[in-house]
Amino acid sequence: MSLRLSSPTDYEALLNDYDTWLFDCDGVLWRGDQVIDGVVQVLNILRRRGKKVVFVTNNATKSRKSYKKKFDQVGLEAHVDEIYGSAYAAAVYISSVIKLPKDKKVYVIGQEGLEEELHDEGISFLGGTDPADNTLDSFNLKDFTVDPDVAAVVCGLDTQINYTKLSKAFQFLTRNPECLFIATNEDSTFPSAHGLLPGAGSISAPLRFALGRDPVCTGKPANTMLDCVKAKINFDPKRTIMVGDRLNTDILFGQNGGLATLLVLTGITSEADITGPNASPIIPNFVTSSIGDFRVIESA
Amino acid sequence: MSLRLSSPTDYEALLNDYDTWLFDCDGVLWRGDQVIDGVVQVLNILRRRGKKVVFVTNNATKSRKSYKKKFDQVGLEAHVDEIYGSAYAAAVYISSVIKLPKDKKVYVIGQEGLEEELHDEGISFLGGTDPADNTLDSFNLKDFTVDPDVAAVVCGLDTQINYTKLSKAFQFLTRNPECLFIATNEDSTFPSAHGLLPGAGSISAPLRFALGRDPVCTGKPANTMLDCVKAKINFDPKRTIMVGDRLNTDILFGQNGGLATLLVLTGITSEADITGPNASPIIPNFVTSSIGDFRVIESA
Repeated sequence: MSLRLSSPTDYEALLNDYDTWLFDCDGVLWRGDQVIDGVVQVLNILRRRGKKVVFVTNNATKSRKSYKKKFDQVGLEAHVDEIYGSAYAAAVYISSVIKLPKDKKVYVIGQEGLEEELHDEGISFLGGTDPADNTLDSFNLKDFTVDPDVAAVVCGLDTQINYTKLSKAFQFLTRNPECLFIATNEDSTFPSAHGLLPGAGSISAPLRFALGRDPVCTGKPANTMLDCVKAKINFDPKRTIMVGDRLNTDILFGQNGGLATLLVLTGITSEADITGPNASPIIPNFVTSSIGDFRVIESA
Repeated sequence: MSLRLSSPTDYEALLNDYDTWLFDCDGVLWRGDQVIDGVVQVLNILRRRGKKVVFVTNNATKSRKSYKKKFDQVGLEAHVDEIYGSAYAAAVYISSVIKLPKDKKVYVIGQEGLEEELHDEGISFLGGTDPADNTLDSFNLKDFTVDPDVAAVVCGLDTQINYTKLSKAFQFLTRNPECLFIATNEDSTFPSAHGLLPGAGSISAPLRFALGRDPVCTGKPANTMLDCVKAKINFDPKRTIMVGDRLNTDILFGQNGGLATLLVLTGITSEADITGPNASPIIPNFVTSSIGDFRVIESA
């Protein structure tokens, strides 16, 4: 059973109990280009009280640097080293967990942000934004040679997805059985400013289906993402809370990592998903309608 | 346990026992543009002996008329009314099974062949080969209005697959909960002349994943395809045999329809898939290395 936050005392208690606050972004801090009401004030409250603030996003189209620009644009304070994205987690996974040898390469289905993170981790890659792969021209295997140095395919959200990219990735993964299949995240959808669109999980779905094999996933709810945060920031899991709008990514991620969890209803999850006979089995510790609700502390 | 055909008597017995011969095409009659050795002679033997010959293909990119041209090109005799494709089955399913009202439309992810079959069945459609939907330009929901007359999304192999098509289909299917989700077939791959590429099942996979919902499938192994054949041709299932190279489509299709089944090893399935501890649970009645093996009758 989740505790519904309502009185100023409830919000005060959370501020006293948790020193590190992990936030999902889309659907929690903003929707599309619109900051959710009260977020600026609430982040200020947290910073004034000396809380560590960390932004953990499955967004795989932006590097941390360009995600920082998104914060600037919408008028929210954030620092690059507070931002952890699934593209960064994928790059760190490749460079530091599997320790890809320097002479090996990665085939990318994804956008600039993923390429930027791979580059910053010193990983060679092909595909991605290469104009040769961003085409609707027909793909013929006759004209294609598998580069034997490609040791992994990494797949993030890619709105330039096309049959050439899928076919090339499929060749790397089938002709070399050692080739790793990595997905930045498995979000089925993502909330654009004007509604839901297919997410990164939908972009890797054709390969999953064609291969009959699931990728290693580096985004929430996988622990790879939390390992990334742990590598850079000291925090006590018992005094850390994950705030998110999705039960099967954000809340599960917090639970997998032994953190407290707070669900907000400004994004994907609605009241109907957490109450009644069809409620999800993933139960957050706390629920509030919006992160903006914490403003009640100051008006109290 | 399958019977391995080897002696002229084995092949004679099959010709005596079955009057109607259903053939898969890719991997059975040809690979890419290359006819498999002996196929011309074997089809001639069947026709000379008065057998009914039917071609049942999950190919959804060609209409029956254009699939006939493929037979002509490779030098095989075939008539349009002997050809049953999954695009045709999808069109017949929409026009005759669900009886889509004439004022309703279908959104197409697919190629000319699917459009041609829909047109021939009198079904209005949008998407498909429309240049507006065959683009890698970015898709913004702000510029898109859901046409309330779209009552189904039909998805076949589409080598022009892109984010605009997926996003539009996703909108039709989520904003109108009554909207039907139909796939021509669920083949994970298809055999091109130079190797396997992602198949129609991989093209509908992003929508399945984003929606968390499976489509109605009109291709093999679904009975919809056999219903199509039955509507046009009289045959006795007990004296009918399905010849194919895929266990989970062709052979299962024959079994689902109560037909005898013959597996050939010129396509997807290899010896290793049907023998030993990891053999498939789908067991054909008969196995031969190639349909060309039936030539032994004439040289005997």
